[in-house]
Amino acid sequence: MTIFVDMDEVLADTYLAHLELYEEEFGIALDLAQCQGKEAWDCVPEEHAASMKQHAWQVGFFRDLKVIEGSREVMSELDKKYELYIASAAMQFPNSLKEKSDWLDQYFPFIPWQRRILCGHKYILKGDILIDDRAYNLENFDGRSLMYTSPHNVNTNGFERVNNWEEIANKLL
Amino acid sequence: MTIFVDMDEVLADTYLAHLELYEEEFGIALDLAQCQGKEAWDCVPEEHAASMKQHAWQVGFFRDLKVIEGSREVMSELDKKYELYIASAAMQFPNSLKEKSDWLDQYFPFIPWQRRILCGHKYILKGDILIDDRAYNLENFDGRSLMYTSPHNVNTNGFERVNNWEEIANKLL
Repeated sequence: MTIFVDMDEVLADTYLAHLELYEEEFGIALDLAQCQGKEAWDCVPEEHAASMKQHAWQVGFFRDLKVIEGSREVMSELDKKYELYIASAAMQFPNSLKEKSDWLDQYFPFIPWQRRILCGHKYILKGDILIDDRAYNLENFDGRSLMYTSPHNVNTNGFERVNNWEEIANKLL
Repeated sequence: MTIFVDMDEVLADTYLAHLELYEEEFGIALDLAQCQGKEAWDCVPEEHAASMKQHAWQVGFFRDLKVIEGSREVMSELDKKYELYIASAAMQFPNSLKEKSDWLDQYFPFIPWQRRILCGHKYILKGDILIDDRAYNLENFDGRSLMYTSPHNVNTNGFERVNNWEEIANKLL
């Protein structure tokens, strides 16, 4: 059985990084509770949205992301039972490619380069399970789709949902 | 119909770059005729092989590759008829990732980021046709495999072969 796991919002806390950078820039601490159902750039005054959208283009943004709680431990166990891949739609951000590779070397060294995928569309992936936070990746995947909960997708229905890595462990281990 | 096209030795002339760098370093011009059936590092005296194998780790190596003759013209036509992807097993060389993205921006701007894949194993790709120079990629692909001729694979049998981009055009356009 083959599993593909997304990076941003599943292994790496991109959303939190947006809020932290926003606070550094504007001195305004956003509460995650205010952000439910919204993209990070929709939680801020309209005149700040463009700045929020620039974060992903900043050097170091993807290298410095915090690891989502429990992901390393559960991934390490999944790796023993499944053919486990990491699949990130990273090609949109060319500066992120090396940063993502380095980040994986640091936090997920047990996933070798042969099982790392930086791509665009994910419906070209052939396997059994996709864990992702984006409906547009999950809905076209030809297998079991697990939506990993992130502030931006809490109101999205129609997917089997996992709220944290403990729930993934309970379902798949 | 979905087509995946490899980069090195199919779109980008990696083999030629090895020979050119070797000549710069050692002052010895290798003849492609001597290299038939061999990897580039097997065409040189054993004491030079390690140096040859280091090329792919040098900054700029993948950015400076020449485009394989005819590939741009035929890819541009394939793009009108197929869902056309570029799939390179680039994850082995983290420094190559941005260089490959930049190289594609220069020579294949009509393939957007959504249809660019930097990966390891290629048997996780779901599509109809894979054009690649490596038997280990082609033999596990679940579709039509086309072996693009490169000096290193001229003695490999068992695959449908294309010797140049004109032959790809004749088969697929």
